[in-house]
Amino acid sequence: MTIGLDEFEIIRTYFSPLSKGESGAYSLLDDAAKVKFNSSSSTIITSDLMVSGVHFPLTEPANYVAARLLRVNLSDIAAMGAVPVGYTLSLALPDNINIEWISSFSKGLAEEQELFGITLLGGDTTKCSSEMVLSVTMFGEAKDNSVLLRSGARVGDEVFVSGYIGDAFLGLSILQEETVDSYNKTHRYLINRFRKPSPRLELGEKLIGIATSAIDVSDGLISDLGHVCSASMVSANILFDKVPVSKAAKLTAFKNENIRKSLITAGDDYELIFTVPSNRSGIVKNLSLELGINLTKIGNIVNNKNSQLVSAFDLDGNIISLDRTGFRHF
Amino acid sequence: MTIGLDEFEIIRTYFSPLSKGESGAYSLLDDAAKVKFNSSSSTIITSDLMVSGVHFPLTEPANYVAARLLRVNLSDIAAMGAVPVGYTLSLALPDNINIEWISSFSKGLAEEQELFGITLLGGDTTKCSSEMVLSVTMFGEAKDNSVLLRSGARVGDEVFVSGYIGDAFLGLSILQEETVDSYNKTHRYLINRFRKPSPRLELGEKLIGIATSAIDVSDGLISDLGHVCSASMVSANILFDKVPVSKAAKLTAFKNENIRKSLITAGDDYELIFTVPSNRSGIVKNLSLELGINLTKIGNIVNNKNSQLVSAFDLDGNIISLDRTGFRHF
Repeated sequence: MTIGLDEFEIIRTYFSPLSKGESGAYSLLDDAAKVKFNSSSSTIITSDLMVSGVHFPLTEPANYVAARLLRVNLSDIAAMGAVPVGYTLSLALPDNINIEWISSFSKGLAEEQELFGITLLGGDTTKCSSEMVLSVTMFGEAKDNSVLLRSGARVGDEVFVSGYIGDAFLGLSILQEETVDSYNKTHRYLINRFRKPSPRLELGEKLIGIATSAIDVSDGLISDLGHVCSASMVSANILFDKVPVSKAAKLTAFKNENIRKSLITAGDDYELIFTVPSNRSGIVKNLSLELGINLTKIGNIVNNKNSQLVSAFDLDGNIISLDRTGFRHF
Repeated sequence: MTIGLDEFEIIRTYFSPLSKGESGAYSLLDDAAKVKFNSSSSTIITSDLMVSGVHFPLTEPANYVAARLLRVNLSDIAAMGAVPVGYTLSLALPDNINIEWISSFSKGLAEEQELFGITLLGGDTTKCSSEMVLSVTMFGEAKDNSVLLRSGARVGDEVFVSGYIGDAFLGLSILQEETVDSYNKTHRYLINRFRKPSPRLELGEKLIGIATSAIDVSDGLISDLGHVCSASMVSANILFDKVPVSKAAKLTAFKNENIRKSLITAGDDYELIFTVPSNRSGIVKNLSLELGINLTKIGNIVNNKNSQLVSAFDLDGNIISLDRTGFRHF
């Protein structure tokens, strides 16, 4: 069946149950939700929008689309060092969407809500004629009103990154290669990293009072570190070979030098980049052990002497030229 | 010019200034906004999404699109009896959008922010390939934590509506008639009612403690009153001839009986429908004088005896059959 007159039935059947955790959501049947945020905290608000065909392939199963949509927003909450609470969801759905898609999408949302302890608070559903547009506004709480900002990096700080960089880019590439008939274990790992990025919520929270700045990798390591540098009025030097890459990515990409370079300019990993004064790097090492997450030093913050915000070097100290320099344009 | 690499420049030039009222918006350059909501109030959250070609004609000037987008969301805040505070804005813009459009759109936002005392708190901008999708999440404060709900209507309550019904439908029809070369005064009034609906914020606030339920007219008088009835488990009888219609609408529509009927099933007026116990109708009369807004009694709440949520009658007590009965489907 297609949506249309039964929009309210769809809300009642598939979306209302997702708001059960919050009585002020009025089962999504009123004009708005009434929420009492914790008065000893500040509320963190972030919005991310996804367009089918732009942010995910049209062939993606709906439950994975749901997971990625929430995790991308949760990652912004993580990058502020906050704790997620709930979200609103607005959907523009093409006429030909079927009820199976909506059912699978809502199941995906339900699983993620359970996993991350969040609740649907409200939203809007409307028709469109072509691309699907999914818009989430996510709410979190900043304990003691403290957050991690982009603007706190100082000259001499060390630059760290969590997890591995480039997996999501390779996973998406594999999904887009229609010639692949069956995926091996390596492929499945990489695809999963695209579909279900891990928002680093626990790490973000622990970095409050330790890191001087943080951002999540959505546009790409170089570009996002560039955002930090721009906001902090500094530059960064990174060592290309120190950028942490998973075994699966090495297996897949290291035959090709260009693809290898692409890993640090492609995005979608939703790992955290953060800066830490050098006398706190021991704390970061302990944090890595405590959380069981790779935290790798990849470079240093330096004075901003020219327009170049981020420079990458090889182990011999030679500068590496990168094809994509979109990060210079803001 | 088209958007693309200069996305950040666009944010800095056109959208950052709109966030000046809130230091926690970090000039829209961080991952999220940090907002401290008033701890003695509850926070009201509502989301509305607009798609070009579906919710407004593609030919609409950008400043009017901005005004309508905010006002539609403000109307949901009004229908809860709350006071607006700020909003997040997510945009999916086609590649061929030009800088003049964005400039005019941001000017429209700035004017509305000034008028309604609200601030841009954050958002997201992305590309799409065809339709423009505009998504707003609006925040308000419910003083003393009290709100107007849809679910409070009781048998015997009187049904009121603010302003005039049907203007926006006629205004949109005129905009869509490409044969119209020059608009007369009547046309201009009706078009303006579509482009710049008046969210009834002051009225909503005053109705706290007086009205038993409220909703804004977005889907149409019959359909939206049906939402109230459904949530309150009652029915409503309305007198067709009592539905308030503007002079301009009468001039334009009353030659045609079918168009006249359409006025009460078409939406977009963003007037408030509310129910009041009959012993409080004097208070409503005083409120109408105080605010200078027409508040018209159009019917009564009755027992819900069958599936018909809203019935319309003529002055002789004969039931009026309406073509569009979409309101029965939820």
